[in-house]
Amino acid sequence: MTTDAAAHATAPDTVLDVSARAPRVRASWGELAALLVGDLTNVRWLTGFTGSAGTVVLLPDEVVLITDGRYGDQAERQLAAAGCAGRVLVGRTAGEQLGLLTEVVAEAERLGFESAHTSHARWVQLSEALPGRLVPTTGLIEAGRRTKDPAEIALMQRACAIADAALAEVAPTLVPGRTEVQVRNDLERLMREFGATGPSYETIVATGPVNAPLPHHRPTDTAIEAGHTVIIDVGALVGGYHSDMTRTYVIGDPTPLQQEVYDAVLAAQVAGVAAVRPGITTQELDAVCRGLLTEAGFGPWFSHGTGHGVGLLIHEDPFVNSAGGWVLQEGDVVTVEPGVYRGDFGGVRVEDLVEVTSTGGRALTTTPKDSPCPPSRPTT
Amino acid sequence: MTTDAAAHATAPDTVLDVSARAPRVRASWGELAALLVGDLTNVRWLTGFTGSAGTVVLLPDEVVLITDGRYGDQAERQLAAAGCAGRVLVGRTAGEQLGLLTEVVAEAERLGFESAHTSHARWVQLSEALPGRLVPTTGLIEAGRRTKDPAEIALMQRACAIADAALAEVAPTLVPGRTEVQVRNDLERLMREFGATGPSYETIVATGPVNAPLPHHRPTDTAIEAGHTVIIDVGALVGGYHSDMTRTYVIGDPTPLQQEVYDAVLAAQVAGVAAVRPGITTQELDAVCRGLLTEAGFGPWFSHGTGHGVGLLIHEDPFVNSAGGWVLQEGDVVTVEPGVYRGDFGGVRVEDLVEVTSTGGRALTTTPKDSPCPPSRPTT
Repeated sequence: MTTDAAAHATAPDTVLDVSARAPRVRASWGELAALLVGDLTNVRWLTGFTGSAGTVVLLPDEVVLITDGRYGDQAERQLAAAGCAGRVLVGRTAGEQLGLLTEVVAEAERLGFESAHTSHARWVQLSEALPGRLVPTTGLIEAGRRTKDPAEIALMQRACAIADAALAEVAPTLVPGRTEVQVRNDLERLMREFGATGPSYETIVATGPVNAPLPHHRPTDTAIEAGHTVIIDVGALVGGYHSDMTRTYVIGDPTPLQQEVYDAVLAAQVAGVAAVRPGITTQELDAVCRGLLTEAGFGPWFSHGTGHGVGLLIHEDPFVNSAGGWVLQEGDVVTVEPGVYRGDFGGVRVEDLVEVTSTGGRALTTTPKDSPCPPSRPTT
Repeated sequence: MTTDAAAHATAPDTVLDVSARAPRVRASWGELAALLVGDLTNVRWLTGFTGSAGTVVLLPDEVVLITDGRYGDQAERQLAAAGCAGRVLVGRTAGEQLGLLTEVVAEAERLGFESAHTSHARWVQLSEALPGRLVPTTGLIEAGRRTKDPAEIALMQRACAIADAALAEVAPTLVPGRTEVQVRNDLERLMREFGATGPSYETIVATGPVNAPLPHHRPTDTAIEAGHTVIIDVGALVGGYHSDMTRTYVIGDPTPLQQEVYDAVLAAQVAGVAAVRPGITTQELDAVCRGLLTEAGFGPWFSHGTGHGVGLLIHEDPFVNSAGGWVLQEGDVVTVEPGVYRGDFGGVRVEDLVEVTSTGGRALTTTPKDSPCPPSRPTT
């Protein structure tokens, strides 16, 4: 995979342009005179700013970013690079920053704030500084953020290709004696070498009857043994965008039960990917996977939702589970990841990252999943 | 460093015992009948649970953890391992979890919640389920969490030693042509090899007049050049606990200005570490560093606070800056990290992680800092 890897590593950076985003949010904000955006992922999406502290005030004719002394220069540079014609204001202390915010919104009456991303404590503080003017809002930015533009898809596709390339090198090394931590370290080192900023989340390597049944297991020094199921859940981060993929391997020849579970999970997962299209609800999509696993007798062992949106966050709208709530639309990027887990057995999960196109679903992850047997080591 | 590294990697895991923590919180919660803890770091500190979703209900005689289907088994296991005699309840959906919570607190009237860690949206939801019973609290858990016990100090010391060992291998490789990303990748790979779960935060490698002045720069493909200042801010994560350290190097012979700035920052940093003791306020500690840099003429270039607490979070109480607010006490672990930055010059920051002992400060990071020149490559 070295040639592919070199291609990933040297691919030109995709340049994001955020300039269309603020107008899109304003078009959907109703009667608001301004929107206070404190969630850092939403701040990044609106402005390109990646610092760890900052609040955006979205006004009808201006974007203002208020941050602290560590980030003034960086913010100016990042906003310009992202095509955001915004103003950056620096306050040394939290008090100074609140003072700047109060000045910026002096003329605005109805001030939206992000109810899900504003702490109760911060809301109390804002309420005292801006009495009677705050209006809770939910998901105003997320509604725009879930729809990925071509540059965002390109970054996620690159992230997926890097994880694919790393797993292609690592899968043949899944032999008895290798530990979960060793496998994790190899995957993360390779993703970096192939051009990722880092892992997209804590890479999961979960082997055997004790660890594999834990969907969010953290790698330990547990060694792979013959007969184990090994779940590998790995993604790369590129330009702030995440990928997400899971493959499960059986070490040695699968037992009949291992094969049966694998086949059932794979069938559910393939059917789920095939069902992805604009217009399907997330509840319907969940039911496709859950229904097949239930028919196969494994419904009670499928203990989590079918998937979630992915983008600047590894978990974001739209969530795909039995509670429903979203209608998939073009530009969504979601995981399809049914799994089956049991304490004395192990676990099997298969997951792809899937773009919702105008005509259906397009898997962005491409690692083979047709068999639970890891590929052979290259013999040359 | 391979022998040291092997020692780190094979050191037995430190076992944390959280059983004393819930009683300590109850002793300080005043008239509350229960405390709802939703902040995941606080949940972990109270119970040992490391999942990404869960709420603790702290009752006078019981600890109850409510989580979802992904985490039931893991939670049972982690609570037992950490010495927390708690009850785990699993709700499949957010609605089911809220129902469980309501049942658990059925008999309790005054219910504390974490004002700084509860979103406005969640507070509205809780208020509807538990009308008239919610009492905002601030820092009840953090007040206990800031004081590290010997097992926590041991984990942080191991994390520091791993970062020290990684930087000892990497510092001699800081030569023209090496890129920030290559240096970052080497550091993170080595920390993993030496036994870290991963980096403690996004490793900073910032070289030259454009990147080094950004205190929170992310590594790029910028190559090191002769004459550059190179800031390396690197920490390791061990058992959930973070380390934090910065060293600055000058590539080639320092110019008089580079030497002058380095000497001023180092003097401020050494004085800051020496000033750490129980009873000093964070404002006084900040003033030690800030005063020396101001006297040296570099005050305006010191654009951030002097430090912050470190533990289960990389940034936590007590924060060390000019706004003050904390009195240092035994068991605190804080950074001391003055820095000087200017766009046409570069940047210099020196940082240690310092434990507050009964008699003063003890630096847990031990990488040499006496000179801005990187150590020579080993000749053997």
